[in-house]
Amino acid sequence: MAAETQFQKELEVLKGSLLKMATLVEETIHEAVQSLVRRDTELAQKTFEREKQINDFEILIDELCLRLLALRQPMAGDLRFITSAMKIVTDLERMGDQAVNIAERAMSLNQDPQLKPYIDLPRMAEITESMVKDVLDAFVNRDSKLARSVCERDDLVDGLNDQVFRELLTYMMSDQKTIARAVHLMIVGRCLERIADHATNIAEDVIFMVSALVIKHHADTKTEEKS
Amino acid sequence: MAAETQFQKELEVLKGSLLKMATLVEETIHEAVQSLVRRDTELAQKTFEREKQINDFEILIDELCLRLLALRQPMAGDLRFITSAMKIVTDLERMGDQAVNIAERAMSLNQDPQLKPYIDLPRMAEITESMVKDVLDAFVNRDSKLARSVCERDDLVDGLNDQVFRELLTYMMSDQKTIARAVHLMIVGRCLERIADHATNIAEDVIFMVSALVIKHHADTKTEEKS
Repeated sequence: MAAETQFQKELEVLKGSLLKMATLVEETIHEAVQSLVRRDTELAQKTFEREKQINDFEILIDELCLRLLALRQPMAGDLRFITSAMKIVTDLERMGDQAVNIAERAMSLNQDPQLKPYIDLPRMAEITESMVKDVLDAFVNRDSKLARSVCERDDLVDGLNDQVFRELLTYMMSDQKTIARAVHLMIVGRCLERIADHATNIAEDVIFMVSALVIKHHADTKTEEKS
Repeated sequence: MAAETQFQKELEVLKGSLLKMATLVEETIHEAVQSLVRRDTELAQKTFEREKQINDFEILIDELCLRLLALRQPMAGDLRFITSAMKIVTDLERMGDQAVNIAERAMSLNQDPQLKPYIDLPRMAEITESMVKDVLDAFVNRDSKLARSVCERDDLVDGLNDQVFRELLTYMMSDQKTIARAVHLMIVGRCLERIADHATNIAEDVIFMVSALVIKHHADTKTEEKS
């Protein structure tokens, strides 16, 4: 019984570390997008620092999971929880990479006059940040309802990205001087879309973990049933 | 001893399944790029079929790994091997997604006259496919030298992608009628670059697994030491 209590304690440490890492990722995305919106190159540079901390978290949590697997030999639900955690840190780390990518684009864009007021991109970022936060809450609380709401928000982000893409294409078509800047902004949109995809991947894992139901590759079938 | 032999047998099944999945991914990338180069929309559609098979492999291998972890309670090296396998299937599955993305772009591009002869993109694809093949060989044979060569090829792919990007930008600047097609081609380049990134992620995991050395987040430090 003492061993089990110890195991539960270690699981709590794991959950706490995941939530901390997710908060850091969320803040990094926020800062990267703010560095674009506020044209603040100094803030963009902070993103690189934060990314290093995210990378350290990845290594730390991976080791924690390996230790739990080796020493506690968890079964069934806990086993799946720990292996899912190892996949999730990979997703979180790659979100950090995307945030750095945004910050790099912001630094390029800040050297030229602003192409247009940014409205959809910050909105995309806001939804994406909420997805990162909620999906980790869903994971540690094994809350498949919350996970499903994250999947739904992915469609919003995709829709906004299409809108941003089309609008920028119009700029490019009408004035070739805007092309380089428009391409940078298209890539920012794509980075946010990728972050939302990572959050959705995690959400699908959570739903799978909770309900042992593979919705991931059956989404198409489901849509067909509905129609 | 019998149990250990059984465990070894199961590990071999796992390795075989990973190699099969990797071959499928490699072929899917090849077909997607060929559907662009040969302007073959029917071939592009085949990619969607293959992606379903890739998804099935992901679920199968994940279950296999969970069973090995639960029933065999492997230690140290084998434990890390199995948890790495679980991360690798996620990377392979996402490479499949990128291949589908390429096929979709090909289908759009095939409706318009070809913008330019494709030279760098097939070259990028060739290198990327070799990375996918070699990195899985490196993983199952715990060959960190081969894994390192995969990491090196990532720079080639990045370089080619930059070249493709700049060339397409020139097209866009000089003739606005090329913009939509050029953007599609930029995205194809980016998809290939992402696939190479996934292969590099796996390569870094292999090196980590083999040498227990984290080169992943120390690349910058290494560059500093060299200069």
